[in-house]
Amino acid sequence: MSDLPQLSAERVHELDRAHVFHSWSAQAQIDPLPIASASGVRFTDYDGREFLDFSSQLVNVNIGYQHPRLVAAIQEQVARMATLAPGFAYDMRSEAARMIAERAPGDLDHVFFTNGGAEANENALRMARVHTGRHKVLAAYRSYHGATAGAIALTGDPRRWASEPGMPGVVRYWGPHLYRSAFHASTPQEECERALQHLRDLVAVEGPSTIAAIILESVVGTNGVLVPPDGYLAGVREICDEHGIVMIADEVMSGFARCGEWFAIQRWGVTPDLITFAKGVNSGYVPLGGVVVSQRIRDTFADRPYPGGLTYQGHPLACASAVASMRIFEDEGVIEHSRRVGEEVIGPELARIAERHPSVGEIRGMATFWALELVRDPSTREPLVPYNATGDAAKPMAALAAACKERGLWPFVHMNRTHVVPPCVISDEDARTGLAILDEALEVADSFVV
Amino acid sequence: MSDLPQLSAERVHELDRAHVFHSWSAQAQIDPLPIASASGVRFTDYDGREFLDFSSQLVNVNIGYQHPRLVAAIQEQVARMATLAPGFAYDMRSEAARMIAERAPGDLDHVFFTNGGAEANENALRMARVHTGRHKVLAAYRSYHGATAGAIALTGDPRRWASEPGMPGVVRYWGPHLYRSAFHASTPQEECERALQHLRDLVAVEGPSTIAAIILESVVGTNGVLVPPDGYLAGVREICDEHGIVMIADEVMSGFARCGEWFAIQRWGVTPDLITFAKGVNSGYVPLGGVVVSQRIRDTFADRPYPGGLTYQGHPLACASAVASMRIFEDEGVIEHSRRVGEEVIGPELARIAERHPSVGEIRGMATFWALELVRDPSTREPLVPYNATGDAAKPMAALAAACKERGLWPFVHMNRTHVVPPCVISDEDARTGLAILDEALEVADSFVV
Repeated sequence: MSDLPQLSAERVHELDRAHVFHSWSAQAQIDPLPIASASGVRFTDYDGREFLDFSSQLVNVNIGYQHPRLVAAIQEQVARMATLAPGFAYDMRSEAARMIAERAPGDLDHVFFTNGGAEANENALRMARVHTGRHKVLAAYRSYHGATAGAIALTGDPRRWASEPGMPGVVRYWGPHLYRSAFHASTPQEECERALQHLRDLVAVEGPSTIAAIILESVVGTNGVLVPPDGYLAGVREICDEHGIVMIADEVMSGFARCGEWFAIQRWGVTPDLITFAKGVNSGYVPLGGVVVSQRIRDTFADRPYPGGLTYQGHPLACASAVASMRIFEDEGVIEHSRRVGEEVIGPELARIAERHPSVGEIRGMATFWALELVRDPSTREPLVPYNATGDAAKPMAALAAACKERGLWPFVHMNRTHVVPPCVISDEDARTGLAILDEALEVADSFVV
Repeated sequence: MSDLPQLSAERVHELDRAHVFHSWSAQAQIDPLPIASASGVRFTDYDGREFLDFSSQLVNVNIGYQHPRLVAAIQEQVARMATLAPGFAYDMRSEAARMIAERAPGDLDHVFFTNGGAEANENALRMARVHTGRHKVLAAYRSYHGATAGAIALTGDPRRWASEPGMPGVVRYWGPHLYRSAFHASTPQEECERALQHLRDLVAVEGPSTIAAIILESVVGTNGVLVPPDGYLAGVREICDEHGIVMIADEVMSGFARCGEWFAIQRWGVTPDLITFAKGVNSGYVPLGGVVVSQRIRDTFADRPYPGGLTYQGHPLACASAVASMRIFEDEGVIEHSRRVGEEVIGPELARIAERHPSVGEIRGMATFWALELVRDPSTREPLVPYNATGDAAKPMAALAAACKERGLWPFVHMNRTHVVPPCVISDEDARTGLAILDEALEVADSFVV
């Protein structure tokens, strides 16, 4: 006898509307689709409509849905031990920490586990503040770091606004983004140099001795898959070194195969002081996140208590699923696959799509992490919808999303962009199928081009 | 072939020391005990030493370890669907929300799910601020609300200190605690009246129109199992009603059978505007927390987007385990059992213990939620160890803990108190066994009495 009741689609929907308070939403204006099942790179509703997932849910199902080995590992672990407090030593926690530490760059050898990305960024900042004895943190306008009070204060995008005034001490900077340069640059190298100069100037006027950390997404995620120009991350590293500032790389979205690396920053050979992760570490099969900590910062807390913690950190189910997921990644070559499918299929196909559609202002990305920047006017680069548009103003993007869904593709849409972020295991054929649908659907976007 | 490797105790310990960054600890000064297995109310190390758990880990394993039905439900759910983004409707999320809403008092009919208690309190405060359009929040000195930037700012105890200056807008008050009255009261009724007057005075001088919320633990947890005098919670409710202030009841520790109710506040017949929960909702088998939201506050967000969210909220595994856990609670009468074992066994036994030991200044609690306040001098009530003592100053409590562990009991120790917080399903016999060990061990504490 199962303790999990079977509900009809109608009942699922009715109870959702009656009792579930949804995130980031006006509760009376949403109509959540009941989902019945999922497998591989697809999920299915109660009418049997199947969606090819180009969003990986919230860019977290890197390994795909219901991977049989990962499912089996969680089933095995729950039979062994479901829960244990963080104060004990536990085999799967030890093993997950070892595996993550060995895959992280440089001397980032210690793992502080959390339940997700927001808490990871909160704790990274806390470590940096105590380690340096300084309070300020530099965070990018084009960024998302989570929605707890500290993480949302670090966040640059409009999701922060309603939570202000928030945690003090955050100074905001512009990162490199040549297509919409804050620095009037015209080449990647110029954008890189000017973005670093901007950061150096900010450090100078804010006071280097007051700055605990610079936080950045190694590749900016929801705010546009902004791939840093070569030299930028190394330049940030230099600024940090010069002034004793902690460099925090937020790899919550970019890590674990999304960029074709364990950690995206490894593509540029740079070692930050702290890396935060979540999502791809176990594809969200169990809530998990964490901070990978350098030896130097760990040593600050050798004889001084670290002032933070969470009831469920280093959770046995979460850690076991991370262990199994990393083993599967290696056995099945998920990281290499993600890189190759990006180079051989997604990148080239998107290049063709960009040529065909006047609404596509720019494509950018790598591996299974891509963005299409959609514009109303290719010459002025005016975005297809205004910044943070809602309602009628956002209609062109809503129409694009609807056109994808009608054709069986679940897209990722944010402001004037659609991102191509399927599970990292997507086959060449499925990637082509999804991109062909996107190609068709973009005619809707084209119709709004002036 | 399992993806979960078998490790020796030595290897578990070695990898923990090499790679796991522990919470609330000086990393070089800890020696975490490797745990091999757990069942019912006991867990076991690699040498086969069994510990009767009087701490429920971090007061979360309310249903006991490895409950077979709960284990089976999680195994079943992971085979159905492990992960799904919060934007969809999903059967177990709908059902968990329905069950929680139906058990919550009054019109608290909507559930915003999170991964744990800290995020629940963060989001409750955010709801209160947007709902009222006000910024300040009143929070108690004797409280713990979590360790993310917002939750730690709400926290009254010393775990907050290292994270200051933190989120602005928190005004702190003293709650009722007759044994260490902030109001020089001598009866419960006097303490209640004076604590309410103190709160009213604070509201007046801070400005009622600036105060978004008053947050309290219905029964204060880690800071001492402080049971509010009759009338206190109703009085806070009145103050909130008078000034349009949101009343937030933090039931992360006190809910789900810990106090012999679904929510402790139901014992006093009071309906807050928001209830936060975690821990006992599914005994931490999968990370889960949430906010139960009143209809009125939900309506604020009917046509206005709620500005918060988390990747893993309403996680299928977490929600399924909550559904199964609530069903088990009802089938096995866990709530009634918790209440009865407190009334018939733990309470009376502790009363006897208090008489036998000069170090026991006071016992207080209910159901499976009890504290022994230990003193160096029963006449002055000087605590057995100073407030927030560490190192040598904390030795008496460390010695008490060691004496319990030697005898096979895992105690909960915080400052000058030991709490009796076993799994809520503990049998009368196991409760007596554990209390007999505590009785013996308290002779260590007595030896420090002047």
